[in-house]
Amino acid sequence: MYTFDELQLLINGEMARRMTRLASRKPAELYAPVNYTLEVGGKRLRPALLLMAYNLFSDDVEKALPAALAVEVFHNFTLLHDDIMDKAEVRRNMPAAHIKFSENNAILSGDAMAFISYQYLMECRSGNMPEMLSLFTETALEVCEGQQYDMDFENRSEVSENEYLKMIRLKTAVLLGCSLKAGALLAEISDETANQLYQFGMNLGMAFQLQDDWLDTFGNQKNFGKKIGGDILANKKTYLLVKALENATGDVKKRLVSWLHGTDFNADKKINAVTEIYQQLGIADLTEKKIEYFIRTAEKIFDSIPVNELRKEPLNLLTKKMLGRKK
Amino acid sequence: MYTFDELQLLINGEMARRMTRLASRKPAELYAPVNYTLEVGGKRLRPALLLMAYNLFSDDVEKALPAALAVEVFHNFTLLHDDIMDKAEVRRNMPAAHIKFSENNAILSGDAMAFISYQYLMECRSGNMPEMLSLFTETALEVCEGQQYDMDFENRSEVSENEYLKMIRLKTAVLLGCSLKAGALLAEISDETANQLYQFGMNLGMAFQLQDDWLDTFGNQKNFGKKIGGDILANKKTYLLVKALENATGDVKKRLVSWLHGTDFNADKKINAVTEIYQQLGIADLTEKKIEYFIRTAEKIFDSIPVNELRKEPLNLLTKKMLGRKK
Repeated sequence: MYTFDELQLLINGEMARRMTRLASRKPAELYAPVNYTLEVGGKRLRPALLLMAYNLFSDDVEKALPAALAVEVFHNFTLLHDDIMDKAEVRRNMPAAHIKFSENNAILSGDAMAFISYQYLMECRSGNMPEMLSLFTETALEVCEGQQYDMDFENRSEVSENEYLKMIRLKTAVLLGCSLKAGALLAEISDETANQLYQFGMNLGMAFQLQDDWLDTFGNQKNFGKKIGGDILANKKTYLLVKALENATGDVKKRLVSWLHGTDFNADKKINAVTEIYQQLGIADLTEKKIEYFIRTAEKIFDSIPVNELRKEPLNLLTKKMLGRKK
Repeated sequence: MYTFDELQLLINGEMARRMTRLASRKPAELYAPVNYTLEVGGKRLRPALLLMAYNLFSDDVEKALPAALAVEVFHNFTLLHDDIMDKAEVRRNMPAAHIKFSENNAILSGDAMAFISYQYLMECRSGNMPEMLSLFTETALEVCEGQQYDMDFENRSEVSENEYLKMIRLKTAVLLGCSLKAGALLAEISDETANQLYQFGMNLGMAFQLQDDWLDTFGNQKNFGKKIGGDILANKKTYLLVKALENATGDVKKRLVSWLHGTDFNADKKINAVTEIYQQLGIADLTEKKIEYFIRTAEKIFDSIPVNELRKEPLNLLTKKMLGRKK
């Protein structure tokens, strides 16, 4: 069995080989932003999850590598286009591709990445290929739906908890579910187990995104890797804000709304004030409970997957790592 | 056998059914620009070519309909994203989607269309599915490459004839080749014949695009459907301009370049002056010869396709219609 570190090495090695090939394709202006985006990296969580799911049942993980890279290229395509739409100028401490190159480059190179992800996916020879492709395509469409909801929410004054949970399910969780299920499909195991892995990934994804929301306000910069309070400054409709708007009344609600509408403010003052309102409303606690709920559900599903415990160990450890960023 | 008119009805009927289904998907903000783009229409040339290629060998064209729609949805996805990149505000006499909705909507709904085209494609059950998907994906990537070259050319003072021909091959011709070959693959006929249809489509596509260049300057508005001279006003690197810059010398070259660099001019004056330069240089004639070359090559390939002449008639007529817009 492979550990997360070993899989990261494998993924990055194969990614580097493919980036060399992409760099030789013409026109260079199309492929440079593709490589720039893939180079900036990230933790390669999704491809690692795919390989770990495959590795639950089969030892020859190299066979699943192209599909793992497909998922990573797809994920980076969504980041590339999201950054244009969100006018986000920085990604992983580097200029976003639409800043480094141009908006046109980022649109077109993003499109190319979507197609490259299909090329990689189709390299895997598996009897389950039609199912794999349907899963991948349906997931891709759901991720678009999630991004659309996310953008729509920014223009609305109130968003319900259920709407918010649906949005992060589409935008974030389905791709984790898809990665894990794709690994199972490639290993050609039963549909039932493949679907268990999908549900495990969905719940893991929900917990992961909610934890991200929590960390942005209550985390510390060292573990989070980003400046704390960014979501508050941007009035981002996170789980925290959604619950705060739902629970606040009277004077507290008035103060919260006035911070949301204010345009002329000191950044640290706003972060502190809104964080204090969250604390008054017990938002951290509420969010932690929700995270716990999804973690417990994920664990229950994971435990029921009919594979011996030893084989499950790497996936177990990665899950803990993904969900342990609060410590 | 089906005529072009019959196939257009079939395509538009099925498209309408699918648009109703898309209209019920949520979020509406994602699917409205998809339907808007598909509704505006166009002649449905690519899906008709696919169905005609299929109909050369098989009668049950309904079987190939989902793949035909896939090609049409893909084509409209490229128009949607190209219009953002080219800052084109009008498409088929209507506001382009990024104007009607927003740029973000056009980016994301375009992405969704790319994935919808895969969904439609995969509905076709065929033993050639892996080959179909590879062809479609490689073509999609080539179309991105073509669009990148096209954008790059706008920032260059000179472009060679070969570079130009390569660009239109990628941006326009490969999708016609792909449509025809996909029809053949779905009919599960021999690779050799499928490749003949691909080459036929490529040459047809080259002639079609060069004719478009010709019409924009030398056509008449009634047959062309657009205002004459748009390419000249935009300094678009068409075959005409590429050849004019290659062939002009001395005073003629100086005049041409000064019109290209001028910013303060009367539109009609510029169109007339550049058209006159093209006439002096015999550009219309040069372009017609090139068009003839691709038409002859396409015809030769078409004639060699081992199908009886009667079955070829609808495709023959459509080709003549596509290439007869000059009359």
